[in-house]
Amino acid sequence: MPVAPSSLSAIAKRVEARIEAVLDDEVARWSALDADLVAPLTSLRDLVLAGGKRLRPVFCHWAFVGAGGSPSDPLVVVAGAALELLHTFALIHDDIMDGSSRRRGQTAIHTAFDRRHAAAGDWRGEGRRFGEGVAILVGDLAFVYADLLLADAPKDAMAVFTELRLEVNIGQYLDLLGTARGDASVEQARRISRYKSGKYTIERPLHLGAALAGRLADLAVPLSAYGDPLGEAFQLRDDLLGAFGDASVTGKPVGEDLREGKPTALYAFAVERAAGASAELLRARFGASDLTETEVQHLQDVLESTGARAEVEDTIARLVEESLAGLEGIDLVSPARDELVDLAHFVAGRDH
Amino acid sequence: MPVAPSSLSAIAKRVEARIEAVLDDEVARWSALDADLVAPLTSLRDLVLAGGKRLRPVFCHWAFVGAGGSPSDPLVVVAGAALELLHTFALIHDDIMDGSSRRRGQTAIHTAFDRRHAAAGDWRGEGRRFGEGVAILVGDLAFVYADLLLADAPKDAMAVFTELRLEVNIGQYLDLLGTARGDASVEQARRISRYKSGKYTIERPLHLGAALAGRLADLAVPLSAYGDPLGEAFQLRDDLLGAFGDASVTGKPVGEDLREGKPTALYAFAVERAAGASAELLRARFGASDLTETEVQHLQDVLESTGARAEVEDTIARLVEESLAGLEGIDLVSPARDELVDLAHFVAGRDH
Repeated sequence: MPVAPSSLSAIAKRVEARIEAVLDDEVARWSALDADLVAPLTSLRDLVLAGGKRLRPVFCHWAFVGAGGSPSDPLVVVAGAALELLHTFALIHDDIMDGSSRRRGQTAIHTAFDRRHAAAGDWRGEGRRFGEGVAILVGDLAFVYADLLLADAPKDAMAVFTELRLEVNIGQYLDLLGTARGDASVEQARRISRYKSGKYTIERPLHLGAALAGRLADLAVPLSAYGDPLGEAFQLRDDLLGAFGDASVTGKPVGEDLREGKPTALYAFAVERAAGASAELLRARFGASDLTETEVQHLQDVLESTGARAEVEDTIARLVEESLAGLEGIDLVSPARDELVDLAHFVAGRDH
Repeated sequence: MPVAPSSLSAIAKRVEARIEAVLDDEVARWSALDADLVAPLTSLRDLVLAGGKRLRPVFCHWAFVGAGGSPSDPLVVVAGAALELLHTFALIHDDIMDGSSRRRGQTAIHTAFDRRHAAAGDWRGEGRRFGEGVAILVGDLAFVYADLLLADAPKDAMAVFTELRLEVNIGQYLDLLGTARGDASVEQARRISRYKSGKYTIERPLHLGAALAGRLADLAVPLSAYGDPLGEAFQLRDDLLGAFGDASVTGKPVGEDLREGKPTALYAFAVERAAGASAELLRARFGASDLTETEVQHLQDVLESTGARAEVEDTIARLVEESLAGLEGIDLVSPARDELVDLAHFVAGRDH
């Protein structure tokens, strides 16, 4: 497994310090209005600081520095903080939609407030509805804080950020629909990957960094040549981890994507090739919420035996190659190029 | 009942045309990527254009014109469109939280997609979860479109818009919590009103208008002297309509707030004063989702007999007076002052 580039943790630390400062101020400001506001705001603060790879700020940083920006410019730190808050917004709303009760080793926000409702004993209404309602609002707050952080960003950087936010919601809709229908083709599955995750994790953060350095016009297309295939490779690796990942490393239950019935390219490849009992197993049990561990293993066997897993690994390797070839053509200030090479190997080969 | 100022419909028309143009473009753009994207985007378009009083754009408009802005400046139309899209975002997420299935005479978005799931027959997962997931995303899209529209607004206008967005989410959280707990004091109920609705409907749209005209620094405080009490009066009227409103005019079931157990000042006044059987009825049945029509009538009787309804009417009258006194002190270009006087009487005395 490729190790994380050493720059990652230094960038992450600066971004986290900025988020912590903003949210601490906000907890103080609103709790002065009403002490009841401490709980939702600290739940946001705790979740955003509980971990995460901080990939989006790192891609933004190296595009910015590669485009000639100063590594110590506070604007790129603030943009990284905005990207992480937006990511947290997406995770919070995502966990409601998927009914996931754990996130970053903590209780998911909707579950925590559902339990708070139950613990009170005499609160009215449904705990589930209360928990989900609070989580919708906490996610919405994260969304606004991302915007707040970008208040001083130039106009074309905001335009990139807005496009990114549309894409992630559009991709997430296609994902929900694909999960419900259960019939996504390889082509549809790849489109969902690009929109719900690839562009939002890599291509758009790169564009944001270039825009902050005043270089969006000349760097947008070349950065996409690197970022677009790498974004898809990132999501394909995610799909493999969602089906085969080691629970002790990923922090998620084994085979979670199989139980949720996510419309991945991995699954679509398998459906294209499976026959007989294997095809029947995919049809009948993929996406069943009551999947047993044995069934998870049988589904994994089908993903292996049909060659779907190998096909996805091959596709990732091809996409990384394409991405690195794209990088060749970009005029970047050192050491951004080397860092982006390391990042490509890291995101495509990671184990969590 | 005071009639709506005649300027309202002219402003509303311009704002609606702007929203329609933006969302039509977006439907065309995204449906070219994937035909499945037509459904969520047209559901947003249809909801935002299905009606609503467009009060927020109107307050924004008259503060802008009163501060010296040109009534034909496209910036104020765009800001009005952004306020309406943000309002639509809030309504969509609100209907999920409250489990309301109707909005503006249409099926609520989460309910419509729940039904689409059921109609498909063979879609996987829970219809409720699918419908709510889609509605969360459609609300999030409305939130981004509001931002997109404000791309050319000056920095201090964006700061006002961001504060407005924080306040409405903060107020909504206090409302959810107050509904669950069922023990809000008059003071807490009034605070919830101000944040979840008053500031967001009147004070902040006024500030946004002043900021667009470059006059936020000198007009913010005087506009608050008018807008803050009027915002509370607006919400108190809403509370009376939620408890006593005529279903054929409000378009909502009779006594909806009583069934939902909304922590209103009206209810808090009644709790302060009720004794014996009336107190017991409030304690036991306010907020019960299975409230019968007879029980709604009994609760209405308690709100009357305790003097809570009259107290709220008196408070509204006092707040309107305070608001109009505040307006006296503001240096505004004609005819903004007269329009704001008419609007004050309209929002405080309306029947829907």
